[in-house]
Amino acid sequence: MLHAVIMAGGSGTRFWPLSRQSFPKQLLTLVGERSLIQSTSDRCSGWIPVERHWVVTNAAQAEATRGQLPEVPAAHLLVEPCARNTAPCLALAAAHLVAEDPDATMLVLPADHVIQPAAEFVRAGQRAAALVDEDPRRLVLFGVTPTFPSTGFGYIERGEELGPGAYAVQAFREKPDRGVAEAYLRVGTFYWNCGIFVWRAARILEALGVHEPELRALTDEIARGIGSPQYGQLLAERFPRMKSISIDYAVLERESSIVVLEAPFGWDDVGSWEAVPRLSGTDQAGNTLQGKACAVDTRRCIVRSTDDHLVATLGLEDCIVVHTPDATLVARRGDENAIKTLIDSLRQQGLERHL
Amino acid sequence: MLHAVIMAGGSGTRFWPLSRQSFPKQLLTLVGERSLIQSTSDRCSGWIPVERHWVVTNAAQAEATRGQLPEVPAAHLLVEPCARNTAPCLALAAAHLVAEDPDATMLVLPADHVIQPAAEFVRAGQRAAALVDEDPRRLVLFGVTPTFPSTGFGYIERGEELGPGAYAVQAFREKPDRGVAEAYLRVGTFYWNCGIFVWRAARILEALGVHEPELRALTDEIARGIGSPQYGQLLAERFPRMKSISIDYAVLERESSIVVLEAPFGWDDVGSWEAVPRLSGTDQAGNTLQGKACAVDTRRCIVRSTDDHLVATLGLEDCIVVHTPDATLVARRGDENAIKTLIDSLRQQGLERHL
Repeated sequence: MLHAVIMAGGSGTRFWPLSRQSFPKQLLTLVGERSLIQSTSDRCSGWIPVERHWVVTNAAQAEATRGQLPEVPAAHLLVEPCARNTAPCLALAAAHLVAEDPDATMLVLPADHVIQPAAEFVRAGQRAAALVDEDPRRLVLFGVTPTFPSTGFGYIERGEELGPGAYAVQAFREKPDRGVAEAYLRVGTFYWNCGIFVWRAARILEALGVHEPELRALTDEIARGIGSPQYGQLLAERFPRMKSISIDYAVLERESSIVVLEAPFGWDDVGSWEAVPRLSGTDQAGNTLQGKACAVDTRRCIVRSTDDHLVATLGLEDCIVVHTPDATLVARRGDENAIKTLIDSLRQQGLERHL
Repeated sequence: MLHAVIMAGGSGTRFWPLSRQSFPKQLLTLVGERSLIQSTSDRCSGWIPVERHWVVTNAAQAEATRGQLPEVPAAHLLVEPCARNTAPCLALAAAHLVAEDPDATMLVLPADHVIQPAAEFVRAGQRAAALVDEDPRRLVLFGVTPTFPSTGFGYIERGEELGPGAYAVQAFREKPDRGVAEAYLRVGTFYWNCGIFVWRAARILEALGVHEPELRALTDEIARGIGSPQYGQLLAERFPRMKSISIDYAVLERESSIVVLEAPFGWDDVGSWEAVPRLSGTDQAGNTLQGKACAVDTRRCIVRSTDDHLVATLGLEDCIVVHTPDATLVARRGDENAIKTLIDSLRQQGLERHL
């Protein structure tokens, strides 16, 4: 059976002050009416019933996550005791899936991306699942056709064609510098690795056993406790001892039977506030206004307020203004990473309660 | 006896969102610990006892004004039923003063200016009062030596010298254009009219009788009701019928015995947010931060928040950010009058409740 596994462990810095440590990006409603994680679940639910949805999150975010996804079975909300990157996260999920359904295929989805249209995504996901059914040893991942020479994503180089839009993976490439990214874009045989995977749960556990035996052993120890009163203690004790490593490093780059499927859907990683005008559009002056806002003589600004607090801008250009009840950000657009500097400053000044 | 008459009828647009229709600029604490109107009263109180302070305000602001100046006698808070410029305002005040003290001299002060140091102001005020005592027909006003070619103030041209720093007024000049303002600055015989006057209450009423007999007649009708149960009704009925005219047009430009005293004190009309860095100073990056604020990579900004709401700025230059519980302004510095355009926009968009 096919299960959807939503990875929801993101931190809350890039969308501060809207996102917080206990309320990260995937819980935000940045576009439309549903939060990113709700949209991620919605996107699958016409195809994979919500009874087979799983969410891996952390303790700080568990309650808010449960509140947003009340239809997902309570036992399918897996709570990591600490952050340990994607390999331990997916090992834990795979162990639970196998315990419930030994032949489970898992569709792994980051909780905080925007994918449109959903119908294209469903078709592509079904195709990926069919490729796995055809050969259960396959590890399938989606590759997004680059639209600009991004230096922020890992790349997948495609090799031999296996079918329409499906290729053997030739190599994984780390985040490139600008020149290399431009070359990848020109060549046309490179995809962005968007972190969406399809594989048998048992198969990924097997691969982890080969490449990261210690991680696998700890996973097995936790797995033995599933459904027993010892589970909580085992998880709390074993999970933190796992190596913090991504599934890409732990497995994908070391395996040979990896298939990349060209994503036929629109994909956006919603990496910063810049995604909001990209996804919601702008008015004639280039502004994107959300909540109670009044923009006078204002151009190319992103303004987000609540429904009852007025944010008025005057003569402003190329700025981001985000109001929340306890904190307001006013930033120049352009330096997407600077917000981390700001977060550090706030911490140094003893303003953690606003983080 | 000398009385201080504080004119406190300002509107709340230039310091929006901190100032509001019912909470105008003079009630704000922009610098230091006391509001502008409190500082105005404080500045006189070592010299003119608070029992002889008077405040003219309007109905919307009366309660807040009373709250800020609890030591001023309740009967000295005069409430205009509508806005009618400075001639009716001062006629009303003069009528009340004469009723209490027929020989009253009134020191007229706008409530919303900053004057420093107070000791210099007291010395200058005493000198002005002495000039009036010497010749009770004199109308004395203070002239501020221009420091830049302002096009926003009216000017006083001085004539014959009457004593050190005291001159007969040669002429009043309307707000000039830039070229004319530059000429005034060069010539050195022009002062800014800062709206601080000293004269006998009976004398200004007499002058109003000569130049604006109808206004004077209405004032007398109100004056007859002072202390009687009819006062409220008389005020409500007669005051709105008064001509809306400034004391400058109504009297000063038509009289010949006007004396201008060169102000030996620092004076700032606190005309816009630009006054805040001017009066409070700036940090090394040129920023003025008030309330809970964190400025990263920020230059030449004015940031004002409350004590519990964090305003964080990032990569910002030459902006004004003002946070209040129900509204936040983010504006580019430079166009001091644009805020009126914004206020109009808010009104058009049905956002009056934030004004």
